[in-house]
Amino acid sequence: DGDGGGAAAPFPLAELRLRRVLRESARDKAVFLHGEVTGPSGEGTDALVILEKTPFQEEKLLDLLKKHTKLELQMHNDIYRTYHLYPPPELSEIKTTVVYPATEKHLQKYLRQEAHLIRETWEDYKNITLPFVQSQSFSIQWVYNILEKKAEADQIIHENPDPCDGFVLVPDFKWNQNQLDDLYLIALVHRRDVKSLRDLTAEHLPLLRNILQEGKEAIMKRFGVPGSQLRIYLHYHPSYYHLHVHFTALGYDAPGISVERAHLLTDVIDNLVLDSMYYQKRALTFALQADKMLFKRFQEAGRV
Amino acid sequence: DGDGGGAAAPFPLAELRLRRVLRESARDKAVFLHGEVTGPSGEGTDALVILEKTPFQEEKLLDLLKKHTKLELQMHNDIYRTYHLYPPPELSEIKTTVVYPATEKHLQKYLRQEAHLIRETWEDYKNITLPFVQSQSFSIQWVYNILEKKAEADQIIHENPDPCDGFVLVPDFKWNQNQLDDLYLIALVHRRDVKSLRDLTAEHLPLLRNILQEGKEAIMKRFGVPGSQLRIYLHYHPSYYHLHVHFTALGYDAPGISVERAHLLTDVIDNLVLDSMYYQKRALTFALQADKMLFKRFQEAGRV
Repeated sequence: DGDGGGAAAPFPLAELRLRRVLRESARDKAVFLHGEVTGPSGEGTDALVILEKTPFQEEKLLDLLKKHTKLELQMHNDIYRTYHLYPPPELSEIKTTVVYPATEKHLQKYLRQEAHLIRETWEDYKNITLPFVQSQSFSIQWVYNILEKKAEADQIIHENPDPCDGFVLVPDFKWNQNQLDDLYLIALVHRRDVKSLRDLTAEHLPLLRNILQEGKEAIMKRFGVPGSQLRIYLHYHPSYYHLHVHFTALGYDAPGISVERAHLLTDVIDNLVLDSMYYQKRALTFALQADKMLFKRFQEAGRV
Repeated sequence: DGDGGGAAAPFPLAELRLRRVLRESARDKAVFLHGEVTGPSGEGTDALVILEKTPFQEEKLLDLLKKHTKLELQMHNDIYRTYHLYPPPELSEIKTTVVYPATEKHLQKYLRQEAHLIRETWEDYKNITLPFVQSQSFSIQWVYNILEKKAEADQIIHENPDPCDGFVLVPDFKWNQNQLDDLYLIALVHRRDVKSLRDLTAEHLPLLRNILQEGKEAIMKRFGVPGSQLRIYLHYHPSYYHLHVHFTALGYDAPGISVERAHLLTDVIDNLVLDSMYYQKRALTFALQADKMLFKRFQEAGRV
């Protein structure tokens, strides 16, 4: 292969100066670096470097266990032991991706903003969050286009046309519909006066039960996936303030399914049965990036 | 540390025979192996071996870029290049966990199986789950070893010694403690009569508040991570029935943080304040693999 891709300058990885770590992922074993090398005319030129450890290869597992260069016992308790194992170089490849020269946009894309958990009481919601949400004029015209069949009409999987307790079920645009492993659909409610989980009371139980029941049936009928293999949940905060419910494959580790953002629809229904005002009483926790406007409002109010 | 944990036989990793790969995770760069070694009396004995590549350490990144043993260009297109980089052994640790001798249950735990959601009512818990849990004799000796300082005593980050409202905070054995990105600690309560979330009532509020408050303070003091960047939660079902609370870095996409398994400690506390019997009233949802005995019990009862 080599330099088949065009006129870009050669890249001297070993001469990279590390400017900053843009982002790390401990789970993915990956790191995103902003580096700099001296360019062709002597000036510092930005580079984006991504390092990612590679998955284990089944045919090399025995080699790994036998050909390690060092094995250190770290902990031993009852039948459990942990070790540090140091493999030889040929068994520990790192996938390295370089974007060079890199623009500011390349770097920004991978820059991690620090997030903090916010515990929003009902008073916080009324005094900080709601005024903020109302001051934003984030357009949700695309939602209305779907509900009015002005867009994606051919994508509708199921509709209950009731203006109060009805909804439309469509594939989420993140899902390419080629495989069921990452199945992802969204139910958008017809009524336009429910912004989020915070607005829900027992009044909305018929709507929520319709979504749960008819959504499961429609997905079983169209895709053959039973309700017991669907994760059905709301986000708080949602990314747009028109009530919607997510349906994802249970085996799919979708973004936004973690406990600080997702609320199972069955739990929401049960909580409203226990107490109609549950979501106007309970503090709700969510993560916010420190550069977000809403975070700054919570800071100004002394709540973070 | 060494062999402080008891009478278990030494484990000869290099002599492991590979029986099968139980599960692989390409995303996590981890593999779960069923192996066999020749035991003390010459018979084949099962072992569970988990290999997991470790996250990058920031202070070693420059070494990685400069001290690689080999660098192969794989692809070059315009400003994009990918390489295979082969680091020296000291820069490519593999975290190795061994359970030996391993029971069939240890192996089953990691064997990949199709999962279904179960919605467990309080009646289901009393009639199906509790009798099942009580019939199982999964040893939690390792928990008692920690609480009694017979193992991992040097690992304790914080202790509140009160027998009723006290707990011990230790690093989870999944965390190698080299970087904060995947920070993971566990609070184990001293009292031995609380199996899980299902047992909690307002009586346990002092204990839960101690764990929340003192756990955050101890982690801030030792690791410099503020409470707003910690995800603090219980699992339902837990993997062992002695009450414990997970502390993970908010930025860490740890296994078991999804909405169908994790319950934020702050939410648990609030729910118990709202209603002391909340967890004896509310149905709880969790995922169960279809080959699990508990799943079969729910099937026999016509509940899935």
